[in-house]
Amino acid sequence: MILIGVPVQYSPAILEKYRARVEDYLYVVSSVKNTEIAEAIKYHFGWLDQEGNAVSSMQGKGIRSSLCMFACESVGGVLDNALQGAAAVELVHNFSLIHDDIQDEDEERRHRPTVWSIWGVSKALQVGNYIRILSDLTVKNSVSQILDNNLTLRCTETLSEAYLETVEGQYLDLEYEGKLDITTKEYLGMINRKTGALISCALKLGALLGSADQDTVKEMSAFGRILGLVFQIRDDYLGIWGLQENTGKNVANDVRRRKNSLPIIHALQNGTPAAVTEISKTYRQDCIDEHDIERILSILNDVGTTGYMDKLANSYASSAVSLLETIKIDKVYRIELQELIAFLLKRES
Amino acid sequence: MILIGVPVQYSPAILEKYRARVEDYLYVVSSVKNTEIAEAIKYHFGWLDQEGNAVSSMQGKGIRSSLCMFACESVGGVLDNALQGAAAVELVHNFSLIHDDIQDEDEERRHRPTVWSIWGVSKALQVGNYIRILSDLTVKNSVSQILDNNLTLRCTETLSEAYLETVEGQYLDLEYEGKLDITTKEYLGMINRKTGALISCALKLGALLGSADQDTVKEMSAFGRILGLVFQIRDDYLGIWGLQENTGKNVANDVRRRKNSLPIIHALQNGTPAAVTEISKTYRQDCIDEHDIERILSILNDVGTTGYMDKLANSYASSAVSLLETIKIDKVYRIELQELIAFLLKRES
Repeated sequence: MILIGVPVQYSPAILEKYRARVEDYLYVVSSVKNTEIAEAIKYHFGWLDQEGNAVSSMQGKGIRSSLCMFACESVGGVLDNALQGAAAVELVHNFSLIHDDIQDEDEERRHRPTVWSIWGVSKALQVGNYIRILSDLTVKNSVSQILDNNLTLRCTETLSEAYLETVEGQYLDLEYEGKLDITTKEYLGMINRKTGALISCALKLGALLGSADQDTVKEMSAFGRILGLVFQIRDDYLGIWGLQENTGKNVANDVRRRKNSLPIIHALQNGTPAAVTEISKTYRQDCIDEHDIERILSILNDVGTTGYMDKLANSYASSAVSLLETIKIDKVYRIELQELIAFLLKRES
Repeated sequence: MILIGVPVQYSPAILEKYRARVEDYLYVVSSVKNTEIAEAIKYHFGWLDQEGNAVSSMQGKGIRSSLCMFACESVGGVLDNALQGAAAVELVHNFSLIHDDIQDEDEERRHRPTVWSIWGVSKALQVGNYIRILSDLTVKNSVSQILDNNLTLRCTETLSEAYLETVEGQYLDLEYEGKLDITTKEYLGMINRKTGALISCALKLGALLGSADQDTVKEMSAFGRILGLVFQIRDDYLGIWGLQENTGKNVANDVRRRKNSLPIIHALQNGTPAAVTEISKTYRQDCIDEHDIERILSILNDVGTTGYMDKLANSYASSAVSLLETIKIDKVYRIELQELIAFLLKRES
């Protein structure tokens, strides 16, 4: 494995060094108005509890904003110039999380009740929409102060296009629900849109805001695509084998929710006819109980699904590392990205 | 009444003369990809039926797109330059309709099943989000081809800011639900955001795309605010006294849905203590039956609510007409806007 020797850091430097600055900036953006919407946004980010009292710090790993800041710094840009882009991708990401939770009827995220489960679906829908506009205005109002209008337009367009792909991916994900003949190729195409587009956008925005040359912008963007796949494959792994104390969700949560995630698709394509029938039957049941979960986990074990997932994730990780060699950034930055890849391959939450 | 002598036209010229061009353009924008999302969008606009077969033409009055085109033409701009702006406001408006229908659990719009009631809430949510991005990309990609980047950025910012207000208005509308102490002033402030912001934006965008001077842009925008109030007051009237054959909704639909609309707020502020108690009691019931509807309608009659609504709408219409006198546009255009105001005051659907 190409990343042998790279330590799996908790948490890698890249996810720590920009965090406080991005958090401060996001807090300011979210505080423009003192309304119930702003309160719900601050709750979602983790700065307020349900009663509106100030609590701990920002939730989530902040991967997208960190990558945006990192890309800007690594190409030799002025770090402050990336702040608005970093905030914008983080806002877009969190907007999609709030709508996702409505969509999936998830009552908890990051060990706390979701926005819709506190404020109701209608208000949560609007809170999501509001965050999305904050993202747009953050880029337009601020980026245009530091960059020329042409580059500002490119940044807003980059965000819109990434978001268009994200929505297409989310829609495909819904279309695939209940369809048991999805190929892994189709599935990977879907997650490339659903997850890859915005991670790629984060790096591209950072490179643009750091005034990188065209080639570097493209390479950063391509690198982000592969990173997105590595990220999502691990996400699908954790959706089945993740431990509750780490993920905040039940073991095999994706099976309970009948998610057609990568492990299930792999088993359907590679299992025995009896195994395929068993999965199909279980996914059509009104209720999936602990006994069903055990049987599905045993099928996945027989088919060797975790091995397949590992191999696939590692092969993307290798591609990412190779691509990394061609990007014109200092070695110290390259090592930081390698650490991030190692972390994404093995993360437990 | 200041508009005496202005005929109530069905439909006024301003809503007819740009319709085909905007529709063609919207159709092209919606057809970029051949996906299920694009199909749902075309269904919503009225070009496809549920089975995906081509049917009649675009649904809705297209007030916002017409106003955008009109503003551009009336300030002497090149009409084609407004097409992207017109499409963008129409897309944003329809995005908010799709989310509104989810929010209000409305199963029908324009005499047809709503998007969520066919495709489900999750997909409808994403269809709405997708339309919103189409709107952004329409402005960014196309407007920048005809205008300088500075003006393109102003247009995108104008759209984002209007949409931010719309969401704030929609959220306030939700906050006001079940609160029976809302004042008419608070309510009008809410509809100014929920409805006024986007109508104002349509005229402002048209003026910007028509290269109007700063004063005219401001005046058009201010005129749109008042027009929005005239529009929404009539909407609230139709929500109670509109006939089913015109609106496609039951008589007193807003009462059935416990909507805290202007007639109810007026009655709560001006009714006898017994009337107020009766409305409050009815709105807290689990189910509102025909007998309840009759009693509420009778209370509204006693309080003189339709007279109040008429007077208020007419007073805003008068302000709009006065404002119109100051805008530097040709008399022929001024008359068209007067016809539109007369129509909005009396429309039956």
